[in-house]
Amino acid sequence: MRALVYQNASLILKHDYPLPAPREGEALIRVLITGICNTDLEIIQGYMGFQGIPGHEFVGVVEQICGDVALSHYGHLLGKRIVGEINAACYQSDCFFCQRDMPSQCPQRTTLGIDRRDGAFAEYLTLPVQNLYPVPEQVSDEEAVFVEPLAANFEILEQVHLHPTDRVLILGDGKMGQLAAQVLSLSGSNIAMIGHNAEKLALAEARGIRTYLSHDDAYFSLEDKHPIDVVVECSGSAQGFETALRLVRARGTLILKSTVAAKSTLNLAPIVINEIRVQGSRCGPFAPALHALNQHLFDIQPLISVCYSLNEGLQAFEYAQQKGVLKVLMRI
Amino acid sequence: MRALVYQNASLILKHDYPLPAPREGEALIRVLITGICNTDLEIIQGYMGFQGIPGHEFVGVVEQICGDVALSHYGHLLGKRIVGEINAACYQSDCFFCQRDMPSQCPQRTTLGIDRRDGAFAEYLTLPVQNLYPVPEQVSDEEAVFVEPLAANFEILEQVHLHPTDRVLILGDGKMGQLAAQVLSLSGSNIAMIGHNAEKLALAEARGIRTYLSHDDAYFSLEDKHPIDVVVECSGSAQGFETALRLVRARGTLILKSTVAAKSTLNLAPIVINEIRVQGSRCGPFAPALHALNQHLFDIQPLISVCYSLNEGLQAFEYAQQKGVLKVLMRI
Repeated sequence: MRALVYQNASLILKHDYPLPAPREGEALIRVLITGICNTDLEIIQGYMGFQGIPGHEFVGVVEQICGDVALSHYGHLLGKRIVGEINAACYQSDCFFCQRDMPSQCPQRTTLGIDRRDGAFAEYLTLPVQNLYPVPEQVSDEEAVFVEPLAANFEILEQVHLHPTDRVLILGDGKMGQLAAQVLSLSGSNIAMIGHNAEKLALAEARGIRTYLSHDDAYFSLEDKHPIDVVVECSGSAQGFETALRLVRARGTLILKSTVAAKSTLNLAPIVINEIRVQGSRCGPFAPALHALNQHLFDIQPLISVCYSLNEGLQAFEYAQQKGVLKVLMRI
Repeated sequence: MRALVYQNASLILKHDYPLPAPREGEALIRVLITGICNTDLEIIQGYMGFQGIPGHEFVGVVEQICGDVALSHYGHLLGKRIVGEINAACYQSDCFFCQRDMPSQCPQRTTLGIDRRDGAFAEYLTLPVQNLYPVPEQVSDEEAVFVEPLAANFEILEQVHLHPTDRVLILGDGKMGQLAAQVLSLSGSNIAMIGHNAEKLALAEARGIRTYLSHDDAYFSLEDKHPIDVVVECSGSAQGFETALRLVRARGTLILKSTVAAKSTLNLAPIVINEIRVQGSRCGPFAPALHALNQHLFDIQPLISVCYSLNEGLQAFEYAQQKGVLKVLMRI
């Protein structure tokens, strides 16, 4: 099959990559559309030491299910459009995390296109059947490919009780920040965004989010009178954490979303003195993301910069790395 | 009056320091006993840029109350033994924190012996009357002086729901770690302590806490099978945070207690990947600490290394800085 493969520190398009064979309890999925995430851009810089096919945002069709038990429970998915949770857990009886409904934290897990499991930048992929969610008819392929990053933002609502009276500030106007703004708006909270790119900020403005250019002093003067209860760090920059710590109010919450691969040097004393909660946040629940898309609660279209074909994959990656670009999709 | 004064980078014993004059709403308090905290040791190294009388752990007697309103509401405290919350807040109608019952986070606050307010290493001090708590008869002076650091550990129970089935690890066997172990034991959680000093660890062992010398590999092999839900960083070392991050389980909580003045260089990615909650924690509620002391739930005596007089104050500070020493008290 055709696939984008990262190996020996370079990304190449192969035409003869072997078709993956689903194992017992897994499905073979034909990929329809995939999205390029910042994690993919980090992976082709060596993040996680990954070798193989990257890609973890996708929508596809179930072509085959392997194993009688899997078939009897999930046979209804055959031929259906699905999206899939990216962490493939062990589900063993002695696994602390799998036994406590935290499969995304299973220490034995492999992760689609990120950790020891070939991903979505290919014609086919495999995933355990229990990872799959059927996509409602009303949700388009282009919307469905956003389920994974939307779910990652629903994770914030799982972890922290956002009150409708809370003031929430999103640091960063990129893909992650834009989706965070849309998901967290569901809580009724007063959401603001701070970023560097006027065009991207305008997208959030169009959704009723107050926005500030980073160097806009007006913002910082506002802040004193109306302390910020929750700051969501989506900037992905090494300075993001320190900025967030400066902006969040005492006893407030700082959500850490981006795996800032770089090491930061920082003074931890403000966390203690101001009694801040720093909450790390990664993958999230797919069902609420699908429900919300089906209810037309999000506006995904403006976040898509361009859609390439898999054959144009290298070009797609090149484009995705440029400043000012939002989501780059690939139709397979 | 006599007082230990920190000024121009040195600590000196003065015999003619002016008696403090209570302001409207404040009480004049005659100090009975004070304790030396690690924060005091940091302050005489320049922490917080403090100048004046340090000291914030004390028990005293109310000698005078200034202001008619204060007198009518708090007159019953005259002549009584009290302990006092160390943060003196503004209580203004436009203060976000004072209006939301978070006076210890008031941005206008002064802090006893730490920030723009003379402290307890003196014959007298002043505090707002609403900061004062009468000490029950059954609680000794030596016990009462521990209310402030005990309260700081009750703050953890205010912030995080410790489940009886949780496994909690305390990093550090010093004063803070010892008190944390006693307070957090009240939750019924399975508490363990890791430290460098066999004698200090033995004190915790005597209270039924499992202990491990830091270099004890047995501990780390245990850890895999029984993940640690909560790690409390009380080591006060720059490496403490990174060690805590390595030990806490995915989706676990890391309580940050010590104001590690030094800047740390650390990789934040594990916080995101393992979805850790890092909770900063500082001052806490006095009432539960007094209740618990009155119920004989703590054993304070073994934590007292020595009791000096105020006249021996410089010697007391010198002793408190030595390795292996626990709480150093001064009787005034």
